[in-house]
Amino acid sequence: MNSTFLKACRGEPVDYTPVWMMRQAGRYLPEYHRVRRNFTFLEMCKTPEAAAEVTIQPVDLIGVDAAILFSDILVVPEAMGAPLDFLEKQGPVFLAPVRDKAAVDKLIIPDPEDKLGYVMATIRLLRKELATKVPLIGFAGAPFTIATYLIEGGSSKNFFLTKKMMYTAPALYGRLLDKITASTILYLKAQAAAGAQALQLFDSWAGVLGPSDFREFAFPYARRILKALKESGTDAPLIYFANNGATLLTQSKDSGADVLGLDWRINLDDAARIVGPGIALQGNLDPCALLLPPDQLEQRVARVLEQGRAASGHIFNLGHGIVPETPPAQAKFMVEAVHRLSRRQ
Amino acid sequence: MNSTFLKACRGEPVDYTPVWMMRQAGRYLPEYHRVRRNFTFLEMCKTPEAAAEVTIQPVDLIGVDAAILFSDILVVPEAMGAPLDFLEKQGPVFLAPVRDKAAVDKLIIPDPEDKLGYVMATIRLLRKELATKVPLIGFAGAPFTIATYLIEGGSSKNFFLTKKMMYTAPALYGRLLDKITASTILYLKAQAAAGAQALQLFDSWAGVLGPSDFREFAFPYARRILKALKESGTDAPLIYFANNGATLLTQSKDSGADVLGLDWRINLDDAARIVGPGIALQGNLDPCALLLPPDQLEQRVARVLEQGRAASGHIFNLGHGIVPETPPAQAKFMVEAVHRLSRRQ
Repeated sequence: MNSTFLKACRGEPVDYTPVWMMRQAGRYLPEYHRVRRNFTFLEMCKTPEAAAEVTIQPVDLIGVDAAILFSDILVVPEAMGAPLDFLEKQGPVFLAPVRDKAAVDKLIIPDPEDKLGYVMATIRLLRKELATKVPLIGFAGAPFTIATYLIEGGSSKNFFLTKKMMYTAPALYGRLLDKITASTILYLKAQAAAGAQALQLFDSWAGVLGPSDFREFAFPYARRILKALKESGTDAPLIYFANNGATLLTQSKDSGADVLGLDWRINLDDAARIVGPGIALQGNLDPCALLLPPDQLEQRVARVLEQGRAASGHIFNLGHGIVPETPPAQAKFMVEAVHRLSRRQ
Repeated sequence: MNSTFLKACRGEPVDYTPVWMMRQAGRYLPEYHRVRRNFTFLEMCKTPEAAAEVTIQPVDLIGVDAAILFSDILVVPEAMGAPLDFLEKQGPVFLAPVRDKAAVDKLIIPDPEDKLGYVMATIRLLRKELATKVPLIGFAGAPFTIATYLIEGGSSKNFFLTKKMMYTAPALYGRLLDKITASTILYLKAQAAAGAQALQLFDSWAGVLGPSDFREFAFPYARRILKALKESGTDAPLIYFANNGATLLTQSKDSGADVLGLDWRINLDDAARIVGPGIALQGNLDPCALLLPPDQLEQRVARVLEQGRAASGHIFNLGHGIVPETPPAQAKFMVEAVHRLSRRQ
């Protein structure tokens, strides 16, 4: 198996810089649409054969060094008992937002093999199919990020309701976050047991918090999950991605993760200076850079690789999910450029 | 006149820390709604008596140390010839997005006294009415931010079309930005001539750019405006607000502005260390903190004041616009706390 990705996560020497892309199993691929047209988004998450098929597509078509489970961070709160829908224009919607004690109390801490068994089935299927190819990354949303969707009822512009609960009902907020945290620990342990070889925790909305709110209301829950996973004895590298979190790095470097994911707003060498040795960095090309003419795209790739040399291990990635409008040939060119340029270094 | 705000902008000693709030003339005030119900948003911008009335409301009702012109950054591109509408749910919409050479060529560089005369009339009216009260801040959007609205046709999630033009048609992008820059220089000079006593340049979307894209595609235009204003000999302090721009501060400290505005993601003392002496800082309480019970809100105010002492001048503000759901009494309490706590220091 191509274990370059796992080695880089652990800061071990590699022949070239491994690369994968957030949302690599997704809408930019015509092959994805061919599977997707038979299901709703959530149905596809819950159909192991389909989820596994699209998970593998970018490995075969684009040449990435790791596969990431096709799923969604919101399957956890759905399994906790919050009815979820994905609307075509609006994105994810929780039909009954969680804003009071009764709603928080109603949420359960689901047994992942029972309520999220379809994810474990997908992972088991994928491990068989990927055996000789690349490692499989499992993932979950970090508790703060999951909480924002539950409280707001979907995406938000200013996260007013989330912050309102944090500020005016901190005990209730803590209860909700504790439940999400406990559910996520069980979920990620089950993913590792089913065969996930690395685990990424997505804190997609961490960047809407100032440093002191992050310290009080978000980071402790993410760290609790990462600590519990380490203590469980799994050898799966742990990746923590606090999106738009440049000013949170002085905290997130102590997350317990082996790897920190970074968006494109901070240069990797600046991040490496803040984070210090012993933690690998993952990132961070602006996804829109995949629109550039190949020679300029290659220059950008070279710059990210150069900046990434300051880190104790670098996994090349985009700074956010690949944009649906991206031509697959551009993604393939980027992956090839990462491999070629990093071998030369 | 209360000149504490102007003194703080210039880094001169003050008896207490001055404070104003972005969007202080806005929807959180019942008195604002009473005026607003007679007009569309854009009509109100274009009716000097109404715009002046709501501009003054927070001075009288909340006790802020500066008034900021009630207007919108998008009146400039509208005056350049791009038809603009504000939809109730969607926000600003440009009905004919600017995405090709023909569209860019059609835009004019408007004479501000002609095409934006209603703004100058509002400023002249306000200076009369504010004479013995507080200084008046004028403003405009920075060219990159204005360009995103023109290119995307409104707000955006990932600014794909803007970055596409930047990356694949840099000459066209440059032409567009040059036109916006020239228009904005004339506009802000006219505001100063009409009586605006400080000028703020809002780069609301700067934070979607990585450091190298900001250097190439956004910052030079903002700096060109600030430089032209300084060279015009105006004594109005210049404020540059690059929202979500923590990783851009090593550049924006050289903007030529007297004051840098900051959102709440970075602590003011950390920002002061990056910016160095000679530049005042403006900010940066999370607007949602206005939901906190008064004792905790006061603690937050005290923390921002404490961190602000590291800067060469501090103007207290929110890190973003005040949220419409904010109780006016909370805003008033905050202003009073800023004054009381900073006098004590």
